[in-house]
Amino acid sequence: MKALLSKLQPYGACDVADALTRLKHPYGGFLAGLKLRSPSTSGKILGPAFPVLFERNEHKPSKPVVPGHYIDAVPAEMVLFLSAPPDLPNAVYGGIMSARLKHVGALGTVVDGRVRDIREQIAQDWPVFSRDLGTTAGAELCFASQLNVPVPLQSPSQPGVMVNPGDILVGDADGLVAIPSKLVEEVIEILPQLAEVDRACLADVQGGRSVAETFKDRRGRLRC
Amino acid sequence: MKALLSKLQPYGACDVADALTRLKHPYGGFLAGLKLRSPSTSGKILGPAFPVLFERNEHKPSKPVVPGHYIDAVPAEMVLFLSAPPDLPNAVYGGIMSARLKHVGALGTVVDGRVRDIREQIAQDWPVFSRDLGTTAGAELCFASQLNVPVPLQSPSQPGVMVNPGDILVGDADGLVAIPSKLVEEVIEILPQLAEVDRACLADVQGGRSVAETFKDRRGRLRC
Amino acid sequence: MKALLSKLQPYGACDVADALTRLKHPYGGFLAGLKLRSPSTSGKILGPAFPVLFERNEHKPSKPVVPGHYIDAVPAEMVLFLSAPPDLPNAVYGGIMSARLKHVGALGTVVDGRVRDIREQIAQDWPVFSRDLGTTAGAELCFASQLNVPVPLQSPSQPGVMVNPGDILVGDADGLVAIPSKLVEEVIEILPQLAEVDRACLADVQGGRSVAETFKDRRGRLRC
Repeated sequence: MKALLSKLQPYGACDVADALTRLKHPYGGFLAGLKLRSPSTSGKILGPAFPVLFERNEHKPSKPVVPGHYIDAVPAEMVLFLSAPPDLPNAVYGGIMSARLKHVGALGTVVDGRVRDIREQIAQDWPVFSRDLGTTAGAELCFASQLNVPVPLQSPSQPGVMVNPGDILVGDADGLVAIPSKLVEEVIEILPQLAEVDRACLADVQGGRSVAETFKDRRGRLRC
Repeated sequence: MKALLSKLQPYGACDVADALTRLKHPYGGFLAGLKLRSPSTSGKILGPAFPVLFERNEHKPSKPVVPGHYIDAVPAEMVLFLSAPPDLPNAVYGGIMSARLKHVGALGTVVDGRVRDIREQIAQDWPVFSRDLGTTAGAELCFASQLNVPVPLQSPSQPGVMVNPGDILVGDADGLVAIPSKLVEEVIEILPQLAEVDRACLADVQGGRSVAETFKDRRGRLRC
Repeated sequence: MKALLSKLQPYGACDVADALTRLKHPYGGFLAGLKLRSPSTSGKILGPAFPVLFERNEHKPSKPVVPGHYIDAVPAEMVLFLSAPPDLPNAVYGGIMSARLKHVGALGTVVDGRVRDIREQIAQDWPVFSRDLGTTAGAELCFASQLNVPVPLQSPSQPGVMVNPGDILVGDADGLVAIPSKLVEEVIEILPQLAEVDRACLADVQGGRSVAETFKDRRGRLRC
């Protein structure tokens, strides 16, 4: 895994999306609405997803389904992806959670929902992507119901999109992309050439060549 | 009031939300969607609400209901909370309004709607929270209809939430929380211990203790 | 045109919106939801619109309607206004497009949809306003269908608002305003006095005069 990630390291979310589009993966793997809330040194997230599902308390069984606290189950070298029920005013993630992830050597946090303690996230230099911010802990309204299972994305324009265990999450200032694990090697294989063509196109166009001519020449067709 | 506010001063919106949640107040008093638009020296808002209701011009009576200009009625030592009709493209608040509030010694502005003149707000170092930004004055579409009355919050996920005269508004980078005036003293009473437990939890977790063990020991239960 | 634009240069989007409101133009020309994504040296956009319509691929005719690549058709001294279908997760504009516009001497880009390569936009010091950000190219879902025609704005609170060829777009930190070309001269005519009254009002209010008295005296009525 580390070898795969180091090969992805030089590329941004848009590069990866281009590769996934080339491989006919819908939306180039883009997960709409998830934004970097704690600009850290790198401003980036990169690693395999450990998805956690939160459900509304109405669905809570009488016995706890997740023993202890879910955050203690997040392994090293992974990115927590927390899927919250839509339209929740409460936050489902805060500063103490990041302290735990940092301690165990996890790689970052994505919350499809609200995050709180944002100054503490920044102070800890912890990369957090989220849909929105909030102030109030979530236990009043929801609970962690399942660990490391496929979870739904709450993006109105992407019904049915799921995030799966082991998907490689790549996030930066443009947003977050998920590479399905079975496509990771293919993405890595085509990324260098795609990025090289992109750089060449940019140079051509900056030099005054038309985009039509540039794309026809460099890409063999008008659009990527 | 000043004595109460000085006791709240050291705490953030998340701390206050934790206290309100402990007191079973819904959503910990969070008012979703209201964000700091003019990062001032403190980046904070703290003070009792003076709520003003704006209504669409369709509801405007033939005689003015608010004599003069509503902004002249906002008292010193209070925070203007302006509730605008939902889905208005026009702004309902601008730079001259802040100049007035600054002059009379008010404490800040929250607009449940759009604010304009944002560079002027920043230049005046005036704390403004709002739902969104805009360019166009509101008089084309709406008017100030009632002063210092309970007003509705326009948060899709919080139907029925009201902001009341004298609610203590506490806002920072995470968002805005309203403390109902009848709960202020209780909040102040429990805040120091809650914040101390929080600090101790953070230190424990940073030191490598599991969150489950930490919360069980420090909070007597798994979640706050 | 250059003479007109230089007369608009000293004013911000709010000033222009005030002038358009005075001329009874709806919403003061405000185009809700379009925000500056690449704070450039000036943080501003000013110039006549060259609108381009994108449609979903379902509406794509068998023969290309726009020859070559649409971006090559954007002329110097104009602002590209790109109208994308609503609720598209894909971006419809990226870094290479800005390189082209920069080369031909265009003035900026407004995307009523998602933009990608945001760090590249910033690196190029290119002013881009957009509704949102994204990572994935748009060709999977949509295509450029018409150039330099009236296009719809995707603002839920402004149904029916169109952006027309030659509308003067004025954008800054507060947002984007479109001046219909037939109103440009009138706007320019009344702007200096409106802005002067505004400055005088601000000074009066900062000096302690009530807003009611100030507006009555300076504007001849309570609201602008």
